[in-house]
Amino acid sequence: MKVTRVGIVGAGQLGRMLALAGYPLGLRCIFLDKSADVPAAQVASILIGQLEDASTLKQLALQSDVITFDWENISAASLEPLAKITAIRPSAAALQVSQDRLLEKELLKRLKIPVVAHAQVDSKEDLTRAVSDIGLPGILKTRRLGYDGKGQRIIRNSSEIADAWRELGSQALIYEKFQVFSREVSLVAARSLSGQQVFYPLAANTHVDGILRYSVAPYINMALARVAKTYMKRVLSVLDYVGILTIEFFIVKGKLVANEMAPRVHNSGHWTIEGCVTSQFENHLRAICGLPLGSTRPLGFAAMVNFLGQMPDRKRLLAIEGLAFHDYGKSPKPWRKLGHCTILSKNEHRLKQALKDALKLIEWK
Amino acid sequence: MKVTRVGIVGAGQLGRMLALAGYPLGLRCIFLDKSADVPAAQVASILIGQLEDASTLKQLALQSDVITFDWENISAASLEPLAKITAIRPSAAALQVSQDRLLEKELLKRLKIPVVAHAQVDSKEDLTRAVSDIGLPGILKTRRLGYDGKGQRIIRNSSEIADAWRELGSQALIYEKFQVFSREVSLVAARSLSGQQVFYPLAANTHVDGILRYSVAPYINMALARVAKTYMKRVLSVLDYVGILTIEFFIVKGKLVANEMAPRVHNSGHWTIEGCVTSQFENHLRAICGLPLGSTRPLGFAAMVNFLGQMPDRKRLLAIEGLAFHDYGKSPKPWRKLGHCTILSKNEHRLKQALKDALKLIEWK
Repeated sequence: MKVTRVGIVGAGQLGRMLALAGYPLGLRCIFLDKSADVPAAQVASILIGQLEDASTLKQLALQSDVITFDWENISAASLEPLAKITAIRPSAAALQVSQDRLLEKELLKRLKIPVVAHAQVDSKEDLTRAVSDIGLPGILKTRRLGYDGKGQRIIRNSSEIADAWRELGSQALIYEKFQVFSREVSLVAARSLSGQQVFYPLAANTHVDGILRYSVAPYINMALARVAKTYMKRVLSVLDYVGILTIEFFIVKGKLVANEMAPRVHNSGHWTIEGCVTSQFENHLRAICGLPLGSTRPLGFAAMVNFLGQMPDRKRLLAIEGLAFHDYGKSPKPWRKLGHCTILSKNEHRLKQALKDALKLIEWK
Repeated sequence: MKVTRVGIVGAGQLGRMLALAGYPLGLRCIFLDKSADVPAAQVASILIGQLEDASTLKQLALQSDVITFDWENISAASLEPLAKITAIRPSAAALQVSQDRLLEKELLKRLKIPVVAHAQVDSKEDLTRAVSDIGLPGILKTRRLGYDGKGQRIIRNSSEIADAWRELGSQALIYEKFQVFSREVSLVAARSLSGQQVFYPLAANTHVDGILRYSVAPYINMALARVAKTYMKRVLSVLDYVGILTIEFFIVKGKLVANEMAPRVHNSGHWTIEGCVTSQFENHLRAICGLPLGSTRPLGFAAMVNFLGQMPDRKRLLAIEGLAFHDYGKSPKPWRKLGHCTILSKNEHRLKQALKDALKLIEWK
């Protein structure tokens, strides 16, 4: 059997977990990243270069049957020449939309998917108008390159407008209503080259300070799951999407409001490695390699907890029944995602107890 | 967290699956094998050298916090000098017993575990006496280095004694009764450094011509599972065993008769990757690295089918609900184990149907 070579732009933990899921399928991943000191380079081969450098991207393309992404913020201009050399999945167009909070929200709106009230901000005047139209509190965000709460600033009263503008005003921005919600859930789905679609159960996510701390799944609410699936189908279809796509939703007064989407495997889907018949990583690879998608059936109740800033005591954590440990091989740094654990339990009660035990052993810093 | 370095002697598919299970745990496997063209070398680093060469073994030991085995037939003499450098798990003593069909059977007998009638054969006279004592048909086997039906010869009538002796007589031999059995089952278990023990559900194995074709698990028979566990405990304890140990049993008139054991992860335990909370590979690593063992709870009904001699059509197989694919990255060769698939189903009925579908797509040759 010919080995399918998967080129992956970015070699972080998502890439690492993709590579590990790829080996059993007979796939070989090759990465591109700025340094060899990255999680995926410990488990697969890597080209060193700038992620948007034309010549290194070309090198990667020449060695790959298909290119995909651990990091989605590659410009359309950088990707364009590659499309002549190899397949790019998801497409540059899908990446472009997800790279930009404004384009993303406008696409969702066009698809009649509720989104948080927001306005484009290109000047201080835009911001003043947005604050007055949408109200306070709100969040000023960079349209591009924000993650884990970076590139964001809350505005609580209008006296903070000037400061916020000074801090972020050099970039294209978006002002969003500070949405009060009862819960955040995410839907991870895959669409294959032939158009087959599969949907994971919803996960309920707990963030603190903009960083995901833990996810619990399945979040059981049949009505919401059905609506989320309907929304997801619209996005998958309009983008002619191939691969895993994630949409985060707020639950506001019992209804879903889309917060953001990610054109890749997602932190809130890590639980699927142990928690579902086929993981998000395997299904992403199956999708982009033209293979049939695998079952997303959950195998019990699961909780995923991120390790941030420091690794917990592995030995003590592994003593918890049903716990699987994931070390990304990174060096510690405040708030850096260094790993995660997933607990799989037969029932919700046991899961809650085990999650409580795990949280006692995990310190975020 | 300090990375634990696991040295593995032999870099076949068992080693490959160990390495893939090790990365999430924060372990780094390094292999020793005769060539770089081996399954595990595609996923981890490798030292090239003869498996029993003192200097390459020493090199491996110097780079490892613990040494373990993909291939168990390393002589005690080769391992002895390593014990001063690093930990060897399972121990040389455990390997020695399992390397030799006679020592193995005598240990089992001493532990009051039923074994097939057998006799030591060091001469043609021994063989003639054994045939007359034990009866026909029987199997003449080399005591060491036999696997997948190699180094064995059936004797159906006494006129075949001379031929059999001519073929195998240059090595230490054992003559065994040709045991008629209703089924073969295997028990995979792990014992940790601290003495913690876990037991997987029994798997029912189907061999053809001495090579495992498929295993179905859990094989549900509470009474037999209990007896198998009792036997396993005796062996684990007498060997002060650390790691995964496998015992294959024949079911003869409703009772277990031990056939052979393997001091390592085992082909009949591959289903545990998808079929149990913690796989045999992860539990072997947990055991030898001094970590707590993981749950062996089954997640449904599973069947594992070997790919022998040629790889099946990946795309068609992956279309089967609940099927996971395992490519070992080997080049095809008649009867070579090139990969396997595991199907996980909610119930036995579905599993049987899916297994039937899979078997239609798999040709052994």
